[in-house]
Amino acid sequence: MPNNILIKTLAGLCTFAAVACGGGQQPRSDVAVYLDESQPIEKRVEDALSRMTLEEKVAILHAQSKFSSAGVPRLGIPEVWCTDGPHGIRPEVLWDEWEQAGWTNDSCTAFPALTCLAATWNPEMSALYGKSIGEEARYREKDILLGPGVNIYRTPLNGRNFEYMGEDPFLSARMVVPYVQGVQKNGVAACVKHYALNNQEEHRHGIDVEVDDRALYEIYLPAFKAAVREGGAWAIMGSYNKYKGQHCCHNQYLLNDILKRDWAFDGVVVSDWGGVHDTKQAAENGLDMEFGSWTDGLSWGASNAYDNYYLAAPYLDMLRKGEASTATLDDKARRVLRLIFRTAMNTQKPFGSLNSPEHLAAARRIAGEGMVLLKNDGGVLPIDLGKTKTIAVVGENAVKMMTVGGGSSSLKVRHEYTPLEGIRAAVGDRAEVIYERGYVGDVTGNYNGVKTGQDLSEKRSEAQLIADAVAAARKADAVIFVGGLNKSDHQDCEGADRLQYGLPYAQDRVIEALAEANPNLAVVMVSGNAVAMPWIDRVPAVLEAWFSGSEAGNALADVVFGAVNPSGKLPFTFPVRLEDNSAHALGEYPGTDKVAYNEGIFVGYRWHDKEQLKPLFAFGHGLSYTTFDIAGVKADRTTLAANGRIRVSADVTNTGTRPGAEVVQLYIGDEESSLPRPVKELKGFQKVSLNPGETQTVTFEITPDMLQYYDDAKGAWIAEPGAFTAYVGAASDDIRGTAAFELK
Amino acid sequence: MPNNILIKTLAGLCTFAAVACGGGQQPRSDVAVYLDESQPIEKRVEDALSRMTLEEKVAILHAQSKFSSAGVPRLGIPEVWCTDGPHGIRPEVLWDEWEQAGWTNDSCTAFPALTCLAATWNPEMSALYGKSIGEEARYREKDILLGPGVNIYRTPLNGRNFEYMGEDPFLSARMVVPYVQGVQKNGVAACVKHYALNNQEEHRHGIDVEVDDRALYEIYLPAFKAAVREGGAWAIMGSYNKYKGQHCCHNQYLLNDILKRDWAFDGVVVSDWGGVHDTKQAAENGLDMEFGSWTDGLSWGASNAYDNYYLAAPYLDMLRKGEASTATLDDKARRVLRLIFRTAMNTQKPFGSLNSPEHLAAARRIAGEGMVLLKNDGGVLPIDLGKTKTIAVVGENAVKMMTVGGGSSSLKVRHEYTPLEGIRAAVGDRAEVIYERGYVGDVTGNYNGVKTGQDLSEKRSEAQLIADAVAAARKADAVIFVGGLNKSDHQDCEGADRLQYGLPYAQDRVIEALAEANPNLAVVMVSGNAVAMPWIDRVPAVLEAWFSGSEAGNALADVVFGAVNPSGKLPFTFPVRLEDNSAHALGEYPGTDKVAYNEGIFVGYRWHDKEQLKPLFAFGHGLSYTTFDIAGVKADRTTLAANGRIRVSADVTNTGTRPGAEVVQLYIGDEESSLPRPVKELKGFQKVSLNPGETQTVTFEITPDMLQYYDDAKGAWIAEPGAFTAYVGAASDDIRGTAAFELK
Repeated sequence: MPNNILIKTLAGLCTFAAVACGGGQQPRSDVAVYLDESQPIEKRVEDALSRMTLEEKVAILHAQSKFSSAGVPRLGIPEVWCTDGPHGIRPEVLWDEWEQAGWTNDSCTAFPALTCLAATWNPEMSALYGKSIGEEARYREKDILLGPGVNIYRTPLNGRNFEYMGEDPFLSARMVVPYVQGVQKNGVAACVKHYALNNQEEHRHGIDVEVDDRALYEIYLPAFKAAVREGGAWAIMGSYNKYKGQHCCHNQYLLNDILKRDWAFDGVVVSDWGGVHDTKQAAENGLDMEFGSWTDGLSWGASNAYDNYYLAAPYLDMLRKGEASTATLDDKARRVLRLIFRTAMNTQKPFGSLNSPEHLAAARRIAGEGMVLLKNDGGVLPIDLGKTKTIAVVGENAVKMMTVGGGSSSLKVRHEYTPLEGIRAAVGDRAEVIYERGYVGDVTGNYNGVKTGQDLSEKRSEAQLIADAVAAARKADAVIFVGGLNKSDHQDCEGADRLQYGLPYAQDRVIEALAEANPNLAVVMVSGNAVAMPWIDRVPAVLEAWFSGSEAGNALADVVFGAVNPSGKLPFTFPVRLEDNSAHALGEYPGTDKVAYNEGIFVGYRWHDKEQLKPLFAFGHGLSYTTFDIAGVKADRTTLAANGRIRVSADVTNTGTRPGAEVVQLYIGDEESSLPRPVKELKGFQKVSLNPGETQTVTFEITPDMLQYYDDAKGAWIAEPGAFTAYVGAASDDIRGTAAFELK
Repeated sequence: MPNNILIKTLAGLCTFAAVACGGGQQPRSDVAVYLDESQPIEKRVEDALSRMTLEEKVAILHAQSKFSSAGVPRLGIPEVWCTDGPHGIRPEVLWDEWEQAGWTNDSCTAFPALTCLAATWNPEMSALYGKSIGEEARYREKDILLGPGVNIYRTPLNGRNFEYMGEDPFLSARMVVPYVQGVQKNGVAACVKHYALNNQEEHRHGIDVEVDDRALYEIYLPAFKAAVREGGAWAIMGSYNKYKGQHCCHNQYLLNDILKRDWAFDGVVVSDWGGVHDTKQAAENGLDMEFGSWTDGLSWGASNAYDNYYLAAPYLDMLRKGEASTATLDDKARRVLRLIFRTAMNTQKPFGSLNSPEHLAAARRIAGEGMVLLKNDGGVLPIDLGKTKTIAVVGENAVKMMTVGGGSSSLKVRHEYTPLEGIRAAVGDRAEVIYERGYVGDVTGNYNGVKTGQDLSEKRSEAQLIADAVAAARKADAVIFVGGLNKSDHQDCEGADRLQYGLPYAQDRVIEALAEANPNLAVVMVSGNAVAMPWIDRVPAVLEAWFSGSEAGNALADVVFGAVNPSGKLPFTFPVRLEDNSAHALGEYPGTDKVAYNEGIFVGYRWHDKEQLKPLFAFGHGLSYTTFDIAGVKADRTTLAANGRIRVSADVTNTGTRPGAEVVQLYIGDEESSLPRPVKELKGFQKVSLNPGETQTVTFEITPDMLQYYDDAKGAWIAEPGAFTAYVGAASDDIRGTAAFELK
């Protein structure tokens, strides 16, 4: 991290602290120091700590219910309430059961999945997302939002990729920071997860990840580090898996050495639910709050199961026997108190809001901006309603609720607009919209009460379903197939991974048949993962629409009919075949007791570049309804001093006929180095909105820290003198110009 | 109400407003007016109201769950959460069921029942009570505490008397004001209940109370008026019964005419749970928030049962059709918004606390100070542990939890010390404590895990139980019988009245047998009501211990062994026979469709005085372990001008050997008047703590307003010139001196 970023980070933390301590008031004589908001938080923490008993200190370190931990009732220090994120506020559950509590005040706004947010390549959207979801968490009186997730996309099979921000550490880092800051402006802690190396769901509770230090530092940790150092995250969640033989919720290397020592994290390490396995390790290896442990009845003289938590009675027992350090206990308690002063006891925080029009607008805007136009031969999209009388919509995902299911990110929304609803609302009476299901997918899913024009329980043969879809397509002027994955087990869902790279059900056959029936076909993929597209050459238009939340259908219609000109870019590579992905080509997956990341730093496009593998769609790829020229790439100098900088600029011009936005991407390659390095790595991006004919010059500043690699022998970040190339383009496989320079 | 009190009242309200509006900050430009705490509440109310839709206004007027109502999620205006009081914070229930939610963070401190608080005759105890219970409500994040209750004690059969403050309007008024203020200092609204004329549980949902205006204004309303005008209560709860044919939750006379017009109440009228019966009346007759209605399935296109509430979809329907006034709707919404700004949105409020040592100490102190030593011949109490080797404790109430049961005031406490536990803890190893049950009471009750030395399920004969108790009494140096009533149906319990005035079970026979077995007998009555004591002449000592909360047993032991010298005074008359009570002698009880309060103003001691009936124990009665002389009663003048004042003083001396406190009571009688008046009425009291031999002069100021009666013909309060007598004494039947004066 360059010094100037570090300074900004610390300044940012001070700003938060100032808000939380009530800015410039006089100390009060009528209340205790810990209750006096005019006092600095650290002073209040020490005062509160000095008043607490051993039992009270231990009590705030573990859950008292599924999602809450005790405060200090005697002292008026409030409880801590968590809510699952990262896409919306989870509905209330019963005190000690996963079953929903049946409340009616907890329907929320579902924001698009984080893959969609990452695909905007727009930190402003991330700030809007964080602010909005933070407001919903605050209104629901939550203190910790369990998100965002920034685990790196290592394999398309990971069932939980949809909750993360893609394959690139730089993109993830730039996108996570504004999210964290936006959430925390509401007096709600963001809890960045799952720290770390939780890149698959298969065997997640026991698998020991073997990764070299270069990949750990260069690929898997940067987004977490940015969330902590730049975002000022108040909480981080340990992951289920192991690293170096220790579960990551109590991992000396990740928590004590890297997070708390090297990164100076002053927040709370929260366990993933059920991620704690050992009292001694939990006590010593950096865990601060334990949640969701699976306890086995009552023991230890416990009055309830939560007393059986590793950091409850067993920890208290160790402390009383002198087998655990009270200094370490105090450090944990300080962190939890600090969190409480930042959240529950921060009276300066705003009141938030729930399901406001602003939140629905934010969800729709982010969804529209995140959708990626992968292919659009012949301008099939947008559909011109002035020239279209009949539109055939085919596919189960056109009528399926996607905010429900998928694991802990499952939501109860006030309303979810499905693709078919959104299309029908946008079309109105300007054209006829006919729907055919096309294939038998997940009949147990949630359909949001949409009538599909046929009895879903009727078992038509696959052939008949395809024939009906083809008949509809033949009648239509335009055909929209809406398929992809869903939130069921072994698709885009927590707890298990996908079983294959291809689309489930009969979708490939339906798409092939539709392509034959009507050339005016747009395939819309609703998913959080890359999928194989064996039919890609026969389909003129493909749109990746992601899981896009409450406003999914409206946002899709915005793009399909041209109200929104797509500007999303892929945050991960779509390989042609699964074997083209480095985890499958070179690394291990899914392993059993351990999984070795033999591919090292060559994840995603770094592998495709190295092997010169042509992807199905490349990292950073995404089309527009207009066209952009990126030209005149040049550097303002050819040598870079150790404390210097180079500016690389390019002129970007909207050469088409519609207003639109292009993401200009800067990659840097190290022409020769002591250690192997990727051909190029993303080091900058700017999203530029341009009217037709308009030109703007985009400038990137390159400093030596951006050229560093992690030297695992030295245990240090090194910027090695020599020749570098700056690549500027519209995608990782669409470089429009380069500039060479030398680091002195 | 005298003008000076009114001025103080308004000043008090302004003080609260200043706290809530953040005292002297500058208006903010970065938030809307309604979110700006530097703005006056009324301006914020108007700003919020102006932003709300019709549907949003209606939504905040009725429940969304058993104990909450919606806020305005779109605008970030929080929900309103209520909790049953008035003795502690009710445990959480499920969203839409009465069943407990099984939370483990909601065990509270049970404070003594309000009869016990009233019996302290000490407004400081009321302030302590209000502050403490308010802190518990605040910690549990409640906005409205459903209490205190100030319905007048009309008959000893009323099952809910224990929740109220006795038979006298002046005593209730003086005691309710500090309670309300104490609660509301926490940013929690007190909800004074049940307004009005809810003086019996029998037929409570339909009975129409017929009462003359004199009794209404002079007896049944003054405590409510004081709570509103002097206490500044932010909420009041309508009662279940009818008055003038209208249910009191939507009663034109009580709510619109008296409460809101005459008393200028600016708070919220909350229905009792299920007390609303008609949309038009609820809309027009002064109700602001509807809770607990029993709805019958879904109608009106409702998505949940709460849409069926009278003030929900049916009201919205009337509003849309123009059949209900939007001005009235706005008035209701303004009141609810005002409440929210005073509570949920008041960021200046403290954080409260739960089960703090301070709260337990307060509960114990109030309990000890409220216990009334009714009789103590031969100094049986306190028991001198230096001279006592064996103590026999007899009676079910010695081992029975009394914080559970009794209706909506039932609590889940962290721990309740039963009388036997308290006695054993106080005695330690200084004497042997033996326990006998004595009679078969309520075997289904809660026994707090106390081992009673015998198998409770064993069915011994009544004769055997008595014989065992007698045998224990014979072995003992001192005998403590702990009986009275309990919280079961038809005892001290909401929803039904007592079936007889006598003690339940075989208690009278047990007491008679114990009295014969051992002259050193103290009878402890745990109850919230007067009971018949046919054995009174054969029992040397009787202590009324009330339902006294979490610390019941410890507080009892404090008194029984002399650590606390009793200073409580009865807040209601104990008649010898039920027929000596005016509601039974002259009035109707329980009525069927209607109940006529034919006794008018002659309630309690006013009736006993008028009829010269000797009570079992009089209003204001209560002994001490020391003795007090009250002498030298005199007035500083003999005539009182219309705008003048008279000071009446008396010298009170501790003539015994222990420190103690006496409540010096001032009653005034109108010697002749146009309308019938009581012989005397309580108009002042002062609790004086004195060391042995110490004397203090107590002075009461009498102003003409204190001499007023309500002239029902003129509809006005009248102070009629003529002769008056000031009575000063230690009880209503123990007047130690008088002073005559004339009102000019």
